[in-house]
Amino acid sequence: MSSPSALTLDDIASRFGGEVLGDGSVAISQVATLENARPGQISFFAQQRYRKLLDACRASAVIVGPDGRELPRRPLLVCDDPYVLFARLSAYFNPPDPVEPGVHPTAAVAPDAQVASTAHLSAHASIGPGARVGERTFIGPGVSIGRGAQVGDDCRLFANVTVYHDCILGDRVMVHGGAVIGADGFGLAMDGGVWRKIPQIGRVVIGNDVEIGANTTIDRGALDDTIIEDGVKLDNQIQIGHNCRIGAHTAIAGCVGIAGSTHIGRYCRIGGSAMIGGHLQIVDNVEIGGATAVPKSILKAGTYSGLFPVSQHQEWLKNAAHIRHLDALANRVRELESRLADLERKST
Amino acid sequence: MSSPSALTLDDIASRFGGEVLGDGSVAISQVATLENARPGQISFFAQQRYRKLLDACRASAVIVGPDGRELPRRPLLVCDDPYVLFARLSAYFNPPDPVEPGVHPTAAVAPDAQVASTAHLSAHASIGPGARVGERTFIGPGVSIGRGAQVGDDCRLFANVTVYHDCILGDRVMVHGGAVIGADGFGLAMDGGVWRKIPQIGRVVIGNDVEIGANTTIDRGALDDTIIEDGVKLDNQIQIGHNCRIGAHTAIAGCVGIAGSTHIGRYCRIGGSAMIGGHLQIVDNVEIGGATAVPKSILKAGTYSGLFPVSQHQEWLKNAAHIRHLDALANRVRELESRLADLERKST
Amino acid sequence: MSSPSALTLDDIASRFGGEVLGDGSVAISQVATLENARPGQISFFAQQRYRKLLDACRASAVIVGPDGRELPRRPLLVCDDPYVLFARLSAYFNPPDPVEPGVHPTAAVAPDAQVASTAHLSAHASIGPGARVGERTFIGPGVSIGRGAQVGDDCRLFANVTVYHDCILGDRVMVHGGAVIGADGFGLAMDGGVWRKIPQIGRVVIGNDVEIGANTTIDRGALDDTIIEDGVKLDNQIQIGHNCRIGAHTAIAGCVGIAGSTHIGRYCRIGGSAMIGGHLQIVDNVEIGGATAVPKSILKAGTYSGLFPVSQHQEWLKNAAHIRHLDALANRVRELESRLADLERKST
Repeated sequence: MSSPSALTLDDIASRFGGEVLGDGSVAISQVATLENARPGQISFFAQQRYRKLLDACRASAVIVGPDGRELPRRPLLVCDDPYVLFARLSAYFNPPDPVEPGVHPTAAVAPDAQVASTAHLSAHASIGPGARVGERTFIGPGVSIGRGAQVGDDCRLFANVTVYHDCILGDRVMVHGGAVIGADGFGLAMDGGVWRKIPQIGRVVIGNDVEIGANTTIDRGALDDTIIEDGVKLDNQIQIGHNCRIGAHTAIAGCVGIAGSTHIGRYCRIGGSAMIGGHLQIVDNVEIGGATAVPKSILKAGTYSGLFPVSQHQEWLKNAAHIRHLDALANRVRELESRLADLERKST
Repeated sequence: MSSPSALTLDDIASRFGGEVLGDGSVAISQVATLENARPGQISFFAQQRYRKLLDACRASAVIVGPDGRELPRRPLLVCDDPYVLFARLSAYFNPPDPVEPGVHPTAAVAPDAQVASTAHLSAHASIGPGARVGERTFIGPGVSIGRGAQVGDDCRLFANVTVYHDCILGDRVMVHGGAVIGADGFGLAMDGGVWRKIPQIGRVVIGNDVEIGANTTIDRGALDDTIIEDGVKLDNQIQIGHNCRIGAHTAIAGCVGIAGSTHIGRYCRIGGSAMIGGHLQIVDNVEIGGATAVPKSILKAGTYSGLFPVSQHQEWLKNAAHIRHLDALANRVRELESRLADLERKST
Repeated sequence: MSSPSALTLDDIASRFGGEVLGDGSVAISQVATLENARPGQISFFAQQRYRKLLDACRASAVIVGPDGRELPRRPLLVCDDPYVLFARLSAYFNPPDPVEPGVHPTAAVAPDAQVASTAHLSAHASIGPGARVGERTFIGPGVSIGRGAQVGDDCRLFANVTVYHDCILGDRVMVHGGAVIGADGFGLAMDGGVWRKIPQIGRVVIGNDVEIGANTTIDRGALDDTIIEDGVKLDNQIQIGHNCRIGAHTAIAGCVGIAGSTHIGRYCRIGGSAMIGGHLQIVDNVEIGGATAVPKSILKAGTYSGLFPVSQHQEWLKNAAHIRHLDALANRVRELESRLADLERKST
């Protein structure tokens, strides 16, 4: 695969924005960290705590914010949002691998499956009856696409992904290794001493431009569908229960669990290892901190947290024990207030 | 696959129980939610908060509880437990896909493996030496059954499941995509500055009628076996450590971690993202809330919780800081009590 | 596979250490638990709470610590650390399966991949272009090794493991079923209302003697590499974000999540379901308890905890509500202190 050609710093400014300070003719062929950049590379500087790294940095140029204009002795690209400009530039220098059309001889394709001629099926991929794979879509080794499932155009499903029957993926969906889309939701009714399974006859329906992390699981709906809207980004090891709806452009970090039938709004951000209960509503633009448990709906946009703070073990032993007696402590304070008020009355 | 034939509401009552109110001759061919039911379908109504959905519902009939007798203008099926009746009816209308006997040409079966003639091996399944696959069992694409492992009758193992050597699955066991059964437990001894691995020579032994969710992992025992008893239901992304025993008919929601050698009783219910420590005992009929950490044994049936409550971030900042000083706060209250008692004595 | 031959207790002492008390001529052929040992087996006893099991134990000999010298009527092997001696002995009696060289006919090996002649490729394994597999390495069924990835000597990758392109595994690395190494890190920039993906062009570089549990995920670096140093042991279902560095001989229990760019020192121990935030530094020799959230760096060795304690549900309801009002409670205590001091001044 050939790499994109190098750009001068002036070229970069005219293509991607920003103002050049210093020598705009330096050639740039890759992005890199402050720590490991080499000449010919560009780095970005956004936080003062990395100032020492900046001073030692060997990059040919650095992307900085408006407050970086005064930085010394080096070609700079000044812009409003260095991280976004860096992202655009990295996307230019590091385009995704091209998809080579073709079906590996070990792939198993059902006779009535529809696989676009521009798609790539890797070794040991399995495409079920009636399934569809769109144009320029990459299906990795060991991926299983179930009966009647549909994968849109320009998707990339990496090794050992499982898509169950009848699920639908839009265009430009990326699914990382080991993710499982459309397994049965956890639907059970206790019937005379045994759990009776409730058939899960809904699907998972995923919009466009969604990314799904490694070993993430999204369950199919019990009756209606589980919905992942356009532009949703899911990190690794996330569990999304049946009949959830995740609103467009919401981003969820690793290890989050979302119980069934919860609806999450658009542009939410959920921190790693958070846990969201079932049958809840989270409105648009809610940010939830890492390791936070959400047992009730959040009906107002804003930032929410609920992480129990770590301590040295001996301190924790002392303090955590009081949690179990907070109600008693509050009662003692109330009694003190009342007794003190009595005494104050008498003493006047 | 042919669908089961439609039933009249009267038929349903005579097969599955309940009392018909209104026109018992309406034909029903599927279950559906209140929100999306169409004529010819039956829905169920169990919670008053969905009353608006009920009023707009287009279902031909609705299953209701005893308190639903007065609901207006629609054929009703009144019963004691609408959810259970709904579950039975859904199972009738949505039977599992029949298993078509056969071995896909790409499956790899060891010469001395025993695969029942009524079983189905999908593409790229792999059955190790001496392994057994029972009658009418479905083995999905990319499933690996290790050397000497046994899978009973009427099981369903979906795509990319891994069963390690010598593990045993009973009858009617369902395992969802990506689950791993029988990987080594996490057994290590620190020996002169390096971790020495302790061979994990036990197995995983799973009873009948167990369901295991997508990407769930159950480790093999160190010496003795890890045991999952009959009727246990495990959701997705659960981790069960070596030498655990999970009692019959216990249900565990997604993302729960259970450390090694913990024994959990029968008919327990464990909420999502709970974490159970190692070497503990949890008796029968214990219910543990979601996001609850259990660091010690629970020896009495009942409901247990331990979730740190979410707050708006600013409130959380104010309150969480006090957690680290609870011991000091309790000491200050104690001192106040003593000083106030002194003062009260003096003032009388 | 032939089992190692039996040893007398005297043989064991001379090979693995310890002092024999009682009959040193008893033959031992396997290790076992106190509960299930049979004659011909050796067990170990380390905790007084298992004393009843010891009394009923049928093992031919028992490994005990220095305080076990007085235990009655049975051949004993007395040593300083019974668990370590047991581990060494178990490793002797239970060596790993030998790796039989060969490539299964269903494996897919790219023409320019380099697979050692002593390696074993199982059914449906897939080795990408330019990838390398070292001497005596076992590649399980359905494993995918991406383009240019390198797996060292004497490794074992169990079924359905995914190694992405260009990642590097050292020697004697064990990876359990379903683990995913080198998927894209979660790198996104919000750019005009949509998330722009930041290409993840780093690798995962794993040292020697590392063990990685089932369904664990380790993301590739954004620019630089994600590093797992020698001797690290990772349990199941762990998520390690991009650009983390895990120091040598650190052990991490199941379900832990570590956000991106966090560096963890050597010889740390992290309990199950802990959550470590991003861009943090944890120094060497830090022990973090289970279910503990770590939102800030830990710069001093020691033991840290932060688990919110479980309670009976009714108690929890009473106490947890106060968490949200701790700041108000602390203010009330401060006001009481001030009012009481006033009163005390007056009364003297």
